[in-house]
Amino acid sequence: MQKTAIKRPKTNMEKKGSRKDYAIGIDIGGTNTVFGMVDHRGEIRYRGAISSRKHDDIVSYIDELYEALTPAIEHVGGHSNIRGIGVGAPNGNYYNGTIEYAPNLKWQGIIPLADMMQKKFDLPTALTNDANAAAVGEMQYGVAVGLKDFIMITLGTGVGSGIVANGQLIYGHDGFAGELGHTIIIPGGRFHPGTGAHGSLEAYASATGVTRTALEFLDKDPNQPSLLRDYPREDLDSRMVFDCAMKGDAIANEVYRYTGEILGMSLANFVMFSSPEAIVLFGGLTKAGDLLLKPTKASMEKNLLPIFQNKVKLVFSELKEADAAILGASALVWELKK
Amino acid sequence: MQKTAIKRPKTNMEKKGSRKDYAIGIDIGGTNTVFGMVDHRGEIRYRGAISSRKHDDIVSYIDELYEALTPAIEHVGGHSNIRGIGVGAPNGNYYNGTIEYAPNLKWQGIIPLADMMQKKFDLPTALTNDANAAAVGEMQYGVAVGLKDFIMITLGTGVGSGIVANGQLIYGHDGFAGELGHTIIIPGGRFHPGTGAHGSLEAYASATGVTRTALEFLDKDPNQPSLLRDYPREDLDSRMVFDCAMKGDAIANEVYRYTGEILGMSLANFVMFSSPEAIVLFGGLTKAGDLLLKPTKASMEKNLLPIFQNKVKLVFSELKEADAAILGASALVWELKK
Repeated sequence: MQKTAIKRPKTNMEKKGSRKDYAIGIDIGGTNTVFGMVDHRGEIRYRGAISSRKHDDIVSYIDELYEALTPAIEHVGGHSNIRGIGVGAPNGNYYNGTIEYAPNLKWQGIIPLADMMQKKFDLPTALTNDANAAAVGEMQYGVAVGLKDFIMITLGTGVGSGIVANGQLIYGHDGFAGELGHTIIIPGGRFHPGTGAHGSLEAYASATGVTRTALEFLDKDPNQPSLLRDYPREDLDSRMVFDCAMKGDAIANEVYRYTGEILGMSLANFVMFSSPEAIVLFGGLTKAGDLLLKPTKASMEKNLLPIFQNKVKLVFSELKEADAAILGASALVWELKK
Repeated sequence: MQKTAIKRPKTNMEKKGSRKDYAIGIDIGGTNTVFGMVDHRGEIRYRGAISSRKHDDIVSYIDELYEALTPAIEHVGGHSNIRGIGVGAPNGNYYNGTIEYAPNLKWQGIIPLADMMQKKFDLPTALTNDANAAAVGEMQYGVAVGLKDFIMITLGTGVGSGIVANGQLIYGHDGFAGELGHTIIIPGGRFHPGTGAHGSLEAYASATGVTRTALEFLDKDPNQPSLLRDYPREDLDSRMVFDCAMKGDAIANEVYRYTGEILGMSLANFVMFSSPEAIVLFGGLTKAGDLLLKPTKASMEKNLLPIFQNKVKLVFSELKEADAAILGASALVWELKK
């Protein structure tokens, strides 16, 4: 099966002057599904979103998505101008178009999403892991243009990843490569309720992980004053930790230092695997900027063998939050065999 | 630059019926350098070895290698029948043919070995990391024939690795990808005197690591009887630990269980990176057989996300100890541009 390459070749349709110049890109997140109608230059011409959590039943979810996309399809002159649909989803499998046992989605087991979409929309549909889609987006339209070896790390509710080596996404033998959020970095460490693992990166370097670290630090030293104590425990989230850190709160700052230390150690391990030219960080946690970037970089460099030190660019995505995933998902469409 | 692919295409020389049908494969290890004259069917027609440690000076080392190879070259009818030289060496860089800062070799700094060999032998020379060479050997002649996604782990004095994804060796942007022995698995753990790192895989899952674990276990419980106490401490090595374990010694068996637990956790992390179809273990430690394999596999499976469980074949190389590296190194030759 052909792998996603860096360059989008001109499709036969385009060469023949066909009007199938649009692709639908869909990013299914744990909370929301965002979508865009993307033209062949990578411009998002229409955007929309629906909830990923409203429907227990995948059929009703696809029905709502179909309704939400109808105006988008009309916006570009109808179904006949659209070449296909690309979907990025957690645990999405590129080889067989299924979503398999995604812990953060309502639909459990194996969901043949690409087939279902294809039938509902009467359009060819490709599917991949959401972080892989984001990596393709960066490669085609973002900070990774021209790079043949890089790793995309998404730091959101969870931690996802897409790995590009030799100019190709690494899918592995079964389509599931690149689950770096689930690699173990602290053996016997923090429990991850979604997977049952102890000490996986996601338990620390996700938005959820940052909140848990903050609560742990507050409990560890109950007499140390902190702005974080002004919030009810159960409402505390990574956004509040960020706000308090910006106001100079010592515990909140320590939370980012600790998060960066663990993330940086993991990144060092990833570098010693595939020796990428860059690591692109993406997602909600990156809003913390240097608060997160500085300790992460320091820890990564410290844990690298000398031959790897001071070589890897550690950068934030510059694409708008949802755009990388929509663009990346839409880019899958140009790979589809007609 | 072209990457090493699975299949060796027929060279133009072969098509034209040229007699340049032999390739020299050289594996530079920390202790010994072994070499072979390999024919185009992958048969090793002549073997030899010299010490890697005798010469402080790289020029004298190459001189001795040249002398040792002279009968091999005559054996196949002379220089004109040889297409080139392939070398596997620790910290060998495929892109520029150098050995860079190899902690286990005498020659420090950056050694332009491929250029030096090319001049000395008047033969085109390619160089790569020793574990990458072994991976190519397995792919062409060993248990990995036909696999497009696998990881080779060499468990010797150190821990090396070669990673194949999408049918290609992963070299990374700088040629140094695949230093999995140096990934951190126990943060703050055992010190590695060669790198200064704490808790890297190599500190536990190498022959040296097994010896250190045995000494630690003996010291932890000084009253527990063990056959290992019959050896002088300073002479203890992984071979003796193996012998004692085979005789049912409890501490020696525990050493393998512990080594397998840590190795398996690392392997789980590697699987979640590139999702290989198989992991091929190679090198001195694999002589322990099931003593090492069983706890390693159990620990790997335990630390994998469910979508990866019971899918990855964990196998030992079936090539003779040095053959994989010689064959893999020689295979580089067929890739060389004339």
